[in-house]
Amino acid sequence: MEITLTAPLDMHLHLRDGDMLRLTAPLSADFAGAVIMPNLVPPVRTPEQLRAYAERIDDAMDGAPFMRLMTLFFAPQSEAQLLAAQATPEFFAYKLYPAGITTNSEGGLADMAQAEPTLRLMEELGIPLLVHGESHGFVLDREAEFLTVYRTLAERFPRLKLCMEHITTAAALQLLDEYPSLCATVTLQHLLITLDDVAGGALRPHLFCKPLAKRPEDREALLAAALGGHPRLFFGSDSAPHPRHKKECCGCAAGVFTAPLALPKLAELFAAHGAAERLQGFVSDNACRYYGLQPPPRRVTLCDTPMQVPPLYRGYGQSVVPMAAGECIGWSIKR
Amino acid sequence: MEITLTAPLDMHLHLRDGDMLRLTAPLSADFAGAVIMPNLVPPVRTPEQLRAYAERIDDAMDGAPFMRLMTLFFAPQSEAQLLAAQATPEFFAYKLYPAGITTNSEGGLADMAQAEPTLRLMEELGIPLLVHGESHGFVLDREAEFLTVYRTLAERFPRLKLCMEHITTAAALQLLDEYPSLCATVTLQHLLITLDDVAGGALRPHLFCKPLAKRPEDREALLAAALGGHPRLFFGSDSAPHPRHKKECCGCAAGVFTAPLALPKLAELFAAHGAAERLQGFVSDNACRYYGLQPPPRRVTLCDTPMQVPPLYRGYGQSVVPMAAGECIGWSIKR
Repeated sequence: MEITLTAPLDMHLHLRDGDMLRLTAPLSADFAGAVIMPNLVPPVRTPEQLRAYAERIDDAMDGAPFMRLMTLFFAPQSEAQLLAAQATPEFFAYKLYPAGITTNSEGGLADMAQAEPTLRLMEELGIPLLVHGESHGFVLDREAEFLTVYRTLAERFPRLKLCMEHITTAAALQLLDEYPSLCATVTLQHLLITLDDVAGGALRPHLFCKPLAKRPEDREALLAAALGGHPRLFFGSDSAPHPRHKKECCGCAAGVFTAPLALPKLAELFAAHGAAERLQGFVSDNACRYYGLQPPPRRVTLCDTPMQVPPLYRGYGQSVVPMAAGECIGWSIKR
Repeated sequence: MEITLTAPLDMHLHLRDGDMLRLTAPLSADFAGAVIMPNLVPPVRTPEQLRAYAERIDDAMDGAPFMRLMTLFFAPQSEAQLLAAQATPEFFAYKLYPAGITTNSEGGLADMAQAEPTLRLMEELGIPLLVHGESHGFVLDREAEFLTVYRTLAERFPRLKLCMEHITTAAALQLLDEYPSLCATVTLQHLLITLDDVAGGALRPHLFCKPLAKRPEDREALLAAALGGHPRLFFGSDSAPHPRHKKECCGCAAGVFTAPLALPKLAELFAAHGAAERLQGFVSDNACRYYGLQPPPRRVTLCDTPMQVPPLYRGYGQSVVPMAAGECIGWSIKR
């Protein structure tokens, strides 16, 4: 069996910088493009920094055609700043992090009210806002508590393109259905795992991410929405490489590295549920329709020939352990 | 300020065996005694094994007077077997593990119904049953799901001394209040932490244990019951040493090592809440009353002189990282 995808997109990707970028960027090259997150140290805050980062990504991709949808780390902006961003060809959206909520988000926004004048301008200009939507509450309640912020934004700025990034709960899906202006991304791991997989047996740091995986009923709701072809739910891997020594230690960093296995694993998952024909929408068409994207029409064919996930990806002095390290996936990319 | 305790008891302790026993046993020597868990590899199943283990503990204690309340790994028993256990001076209780629920519990009980004839005999003979009460469900629901088993046992065997070990939820406390024949232990860490401390920021393997720490409202209920002097709630550290390399790795083993700092930390906690006079009940009197124990009346004095928790306890080729490693505790044991 085969599935041919046109222009698969990863709508939420961390490529990092420097040696880690050189190692990980080519591992996303089966995608036609990706939304690149700006939480570097320091964050990507200006069009100049954004262009320079896009160039470093191009270098790391080594000529593979790749539509990098670059983002700026959100802070309140003037109209001139927004127009300058919008005039930058590589620019796609602003990414908003509540201050301190995840990896390298220390400079994020402490008070949502400060954002409102900027959001009104973004709504007018058609600039998307991508949000890491977690409160600072108890870890399992953070996404649910943040839904009131999404609701307020959706009501005040009904034409703002607003993406709830990496949703993990059934409650977020309900909100998605309530407000047609909202969209959402969901990761591979949140379609597959629950907190049981992270901490139900032994502790598995390579499945530890923010937001934390939730309950079985949440996972089932997310999977049903993805397989069912929800038109405003997009694949965004949130693939987040960390050096191995920062994962396998006390104080393990949050993030699951899935980029190199995401398409085969998604193909396996959708095929196993008889939803192979819905994968195109989930990994490309839904996002293109919502955002008006026109990625280069590259085609990637997946087949049900098994692949072995490497135990480790190494290079440039870096080593990163992927999700499902050493395991067999029933599908692979046809070369 | 000082608190003098008479015969503090740790009503749930893992000492392991071999070199780990030699390292950890003396670190519990400030207690007058402890309930020693039987989940060795292989488990402690016979009076002979129990006596031999008690002797190895005595050797490791190197002469410190210590009342070891030994337990046998529960399996259905004949009356003759129960009488033989009861005739063993070191014997205290049976410990029941659902099969595969935690460290070294693979040989545990798969079907509770099989236990009933034995439990009827234990009720008649006055032999306590200590239970690791978790189902095989979703990790956060396991204790709550098991409460129906406790309820059934408390109704069928109303005179059975039945201990809900290391409870972590407000729901378990409610059950404790419903059935006066039940008792429960609670650990130090479950009075202090929630899942936020384990996985809310970076992942902290040294706070990972079974049952997993739960929600803030659960922790608050447990703390209120302990500080409030609940007469059937006992301190049981569940101190569970693992070699450092089994904690700081993928697939980290469950267990928090608290034995050497438990009394100072409890003193700090009770004093901070103005409940210093309730500590004697929590760490000794409540359990002595319920079980009819008469430990040797050793006295231990705690004072509000700070102690630095070592980053690591080492010896006999073993190294174990304690809870609060490297941190300062406001109280210490007066030597």
